[in-house]
Parts: sequence; C-alpha cells; structure tokens
Amino acid sequence: MMNYILRDENAIYYECGYSSDNAVFLSLGSEKWLITDSRYTVEAKEQVRNAEVIEASDLLKATRSLLRSHRVMRLVFDPKDWTVQGLEGLKRKLPHTHFAPQPDFSHQKRIVKSEEEIALLKKAAELGREGFDAFANYLNLSGCERREKRLHFEAKAALSHYGEYDLSFDPIVAINANAAKPHALPTDVVLKEGDLLLVDAGLKYRRYCSDRTRTVHVKEGMTFGDDQKFASQKIQKAYDLVRKAHDMAIEKARSGMTGAQIDRLAREVIEKGGMAEYFVHSTGHGVGLDIHEMPYISARGKTIVEDGMVFTIEPGIYIPGEFGIRIEDMVLMRSGRAEIL
Amino acid sequence: MMNYILRDENAIYYECGYSSDNAVFLSLGSEKWLITDSRYTVEAKEQVRNAEVIEASDLLKATRSLLRSHRVMRLVFDPKDWTVQGLEGLKRKLPHTHFAPQPDFSHQKRIVKSEEEIALLKKAAELGREGFDAFANYLNLSGCERREKRLHFEAKAALSHYGEYDLSFDPIVAINANAAKPHALPTDVVLKEGDLLLVDAGLKYRRYCSDRTRTVHVKEGMTFGDDQKFASQKIQKAYDLVRKAHDMAIEKARSGMTGAQIDRLAREVIEKGGMAEYFVHSTGHGVGLDIHEMPYISARGKTIVEDGMVFTIEPGIYIPGEFGIRIEDMVLMRSGRAEIL
Repeated sequence: MMNYILRDENAIYYECGYSSDNAVFLSLGSEKWLITDSRYTVEAKEQVRNAEVIEASDLLKATRSLLRSHRVMRLVFDPKDWTVQGLEGLKRKLPHTHFAPQPDFSHQKRIVKSEEEIALLKKAAELGREGFDAFANYLNLSGCERREKRLHFEAKAALSHYGEYDLSFDPIVAINANAAKPHALPTDVVLKEGDLLLVDAGLKYRRYCSDRTRTVHVKEGMTFGDDQKFASQKIQKAYDLVRKAHDMAIEKARSGMTGAQIDRLAREVIEKGGMAEYFVHSTGHGVGLDIHEMPYISARGKTIVEDGMVFTIEPGIYIPGEFGIRIEDMVLMRSGRAEIL
Repeated sequence: MMNYILRDENAIYYECGYSSDNAVFLSLGSEKWLITDSRYTVEAKEQVRNAEVIEASDLLKATRSLLRSHRVMRLVFDPKDWTVQGLEGLKRKLPHTHFAPQPDFSHQKRIVKSEEEIALLKKAAELGREGFDAFANYLNLSGCERREKRLHFEAKAALSHYGEYDLSFDPIVAINANAAKPHALPTDVVLKEGDLLLVDAGLKYRRYCSDRTRTVHVKEGMTFGDDQKFASQKIQKAYDLVRKAHDMAIEKARSGMTGAQIDRLAREVIEKGGMAEYFVHSTGHGVGLDIHEMPYISARGKTIVEDGMVFTIEPGIYIPGEFGIRIEDMVLMRSGRAEIL
C-alpha cells in the first residue's frame, strides 16, 4: 500500500472527518495518524475516524519519528501542498526516505463523489439558491442602499443566511462594465433601474461548497432566474448566447467525454454566435470540499468525466468597457448525463 | 545589491504599491519587475511604482528568462512563501543560479513602519474602534437576535462598516466558556444578560490591518470600554489581572527591549496573581499589511523592539470550561515608549 502525507485542511478532513489549521495526516500502509497540537486534540479525538490522534507541539518532529520507526522508504506528497520550508523540515535527518511528489494527489482521490458527498453538495446548492433569493429580496426593497460595495456586503449577508453558513469564496457583485472584469472589486457605483448585475456566489454546507452565477436585468420585482430580458439588443443577444451555451453543455454532456469535449459543447455555441473572442475562460471546474477541484472543464481538460463527478458549467461573454455575462450552475454526472444539482 | 524574488501578495504590494493573486516580483540590483497575467496588467501599469510591469501567461517562464538574461548567480527567496512545486518551476533550466532561502525576508524589511504606514495603521485602528461601537449598538437593540452565530455575523457587519472595509481576519465572538477556547467557532448558544462576551476583530484600511480584543460584561447599555464590572468575583479578579498586565506592558515597554522582555512585563503580572498557567499564548505580534508580522512579543522573541514598530499587547486568562478573557490593543513605539494607536 502507498504511503502518503497531507497538510491541506480539506485533504485531511476528507481522510478522517476532522482537520485543524495546524495538522498533518500520515498514512503508512493500513495505519493512519492525525497529528495536531494541544489546542485541537480534544475535538480531534471526538471526531476523527479511522486514524489515531497524536498530540505534538512540533508536528514535523512527531511525523519524522513515525517515519523513522516505520522505516518508510517512499512517501508520496503533493508539491503544491507543501512550502519549501515545510518539506525541508520534514526531510531533516531522514536520509533513507524518498519523498515522491505527486501533484493533486488528494484532488485525484476526491474526484468521484460518494452518495453522502453528493447529498451534501445538493443541499449546499439548494441553500445557495435560497441565498440568491434572499439577496433579490434586498434588491427589491424600496429605498435600499445600492452602491456596489453595499450590494457586495448584502450578497455576503444573504448567501451566508445572515451568519448561518460560511461562504465558499468572496462573492463577485458587479454592475454593467464592471462585470466585464474577471476580478471585479466592488466600487462606489450605484445600481440603477435597467442596469445589468452579475452575481457569482456560494456557501458551504458541512464544509461542501456551492457555486452559482446569475446575470440579471435590474427592475422592480427582479429575480435571479435565468429568463432575463434586457433593454439593450446587444446585451440580450449575448445573454441568449451564453444561456444557450450553458443549456447545451448540460444537455449534451455525457460520461466518458473529456473535460475538453464538454468545454467544446459550450464554446461551439458561442463561436457560432460570432463571440468566441469574448469567452475568455474555461467552461467549468469541479466542486467539493474545495471550490476549485478536478475535473477541469477546459480546452486542455484531459480528465475523462465519469458518473459521480460534480462540476460547474459557466460560460460567459465579456465585452471590456461595456458589460459581462455569465450563467453558472453546478451539475452532477449520473447515469451518463449531467443534471443540475 | 541583493537579488530577490517575492510571491506573497502583501510582500509584493509593499515593494511597488500593487499586487494581484497571480504575480511575481523580481529585484535584480536596481532593476525591478512586477510580472502578472493579462487580467491585471491594465491596473498594474496604472498603479505600480518603481518597477516595470511585464505581462505573461506563464509567470515562472517569464521570470526564468529575466534571470537567464541577467546571468543571476544568487537569488534570495522566502522558503515559507514558495511551494515545492513553485520553486521547482522557477529553478527549471537555471543550473547556474543559486536559490538562497531567507525565511521572513519581506517581514524583516517591513518591521519598522514609515510615517505613512503609521498613519494608515492609526486610521485602521480608529475605524476598528468605531466598528466595535457599532457592534455595541447592535447588542443594545432590544429584541435583537443573540445566538452566537448571529453575533459573529453582526460583528463582521459592524467591523466592515457594513461592507465599506475588508476584515483583517475572521472575528472571534465567544460567550462564557466558549471564550476559553483559543480557536472558538460560533455556536447556537444564546447570549444572555450577565454573560461574558469576548470579541477579537479588525479591519483593513488601504490594506493595513487593525486588531483589537475586548471582553465585556453583557448588560443594558454595555460598551466595549475596558472598565468592565462582572458579577462573578472569580471573573472580576481574572479580568483585573489581565487589564493590569495589558496596562503594565504598555506603560513599561521601551525601545531597545527584546520581544521576550516585553512579554515578561505582562506575564509577570499574571504570574504574581497566581494565574500563570492560564496565560497560554504570547503577549503580542507585529501588525501591518499582514495581521501577524514581526516583531513577536513572546517568551522566545529575540528581536529588539525599536521606534516605528507596531504590535499588539494582548494578555489573556483562559479557564477551560468556565471563561476566557483577553484585552488587546495595537501600540506604536515612538520616542522610546509604547503608545496605543
């Protein structure tokens, strides 16, 4: 059996149902340890499954002593998961252990979700949609403050269900031309009737992430549904194209395709609409404990997409200085097809 | 002149007034470059000071080509700042460059704050105090929701000035025994009249962090002042001791002392009160662009504290299962003494 070591919180949580911001997980054959400091061991002992909890003030020293006593010859680690300093500390005085880098080691293991994980992701997606609805309620309040910065704050409030859930990332809330910037930061621009508003946001339910984007026409009684009518023909044309790309990719995706083939399904629609140059990112990414996981649904995505994988479909069109549009949902591959979670 | 490379966002911002989540900063002799991708170059060119902006889709490749054309023999990097994978990518095909690890390289440079930085930190601290006042207003609303989770949410809302500022960290809002856990997560416990409430929170003003903790007795008209009266004698005794330790450390700290000597000033008070075993962390840490910087005010802090350094003084007493108390302010060393920012 393979020996491996993990440092990333979500990677560790996946293995044993617990993690802290100062922990190492070590798996040697069939033996497994969660090593953490005294601040966390009481909770760890209550929650850890399938591993022994070791308390240590110096995690790396405790790890080295296990590696030494088990005469480990080869240990897999993720070179993205360890800093140069961390790995140096781990290797110290272990001349006989070969440290074998394996990028994305944990993400590879986590790519197909269990039924239990799927249920959590489904719940996260539902709660996420409720968060969007609560944000729509704010926007429909007469006289509410509508500066982009304040809207960003209200989106966070609504998505977290007013403090009940953590967010899976800092939401994007962008008006008109600001929505064309992939890394839009909220400004002092004030949202007006007739504006375009892009909202990309998600929350965590029992550590599993949701991720959703809607682009909407702002008016009285607005919703975050995907049937939006814009005043500008140019915007409407781009919106309809993005929506079609989103719907087609979900309708035609099949287990056994590569990420690149699914990316193609969305990209083709936008290319045929003559707007290929404005679809500047990939079609989607896996979602789980991390907001960005495998499989990557991109032009270079070689991973074969299989039943049990969960990922986003999120085509977009961005016209610099004018507007940006993106529609995103999470889908699950089941019985060979993609269904919206 | 020393050649060095940076990856950390705040380290890069410190050098050139701009950074993005995908950037490298390279300094070779008197020449400096900010290397980032096309999403960020427009903004970068507007904002970068004292460095040339290079646009690259592969940052490490662009960096290697600069290292090669400048025949760099030795390059300083921070081994905490680079992942194993990142450094491997940087070293590729550069057999003649020696990569010299220097932990905390940027933090060392940033330890003494300029007058401009001090003004920003002072403003952050002021806005932080206003945030605490706004949170007190919430707590004094009759009928407000007082579950710990909701209070955590309201603390974030108040500290951010309802979306105007980013937070410098996820606040701690902990009731009674929960305040004794150094890593307390918010629960469904409901705050009642007479409870103890610990709040540790801060915001960022133009990227500079504030950090403050208050522990208060909950009653009508409560404030986050440090003159608190608790019903329990045991709590009051511990509170008075923490407050005395906090005040003494600030009153007696002098430029030229080590971090350990300042830590001693606070710890001694708590030892004399017979509660040394319950003061389980160090007395403070530097604050700047990062929420935790040098100097470290701890039993092992060897750094000499000098004028222009900004750090926290935050002694505490934690009685497991009962309560936790901490009082924290940011101080500036100026003319040889510590003043609260």
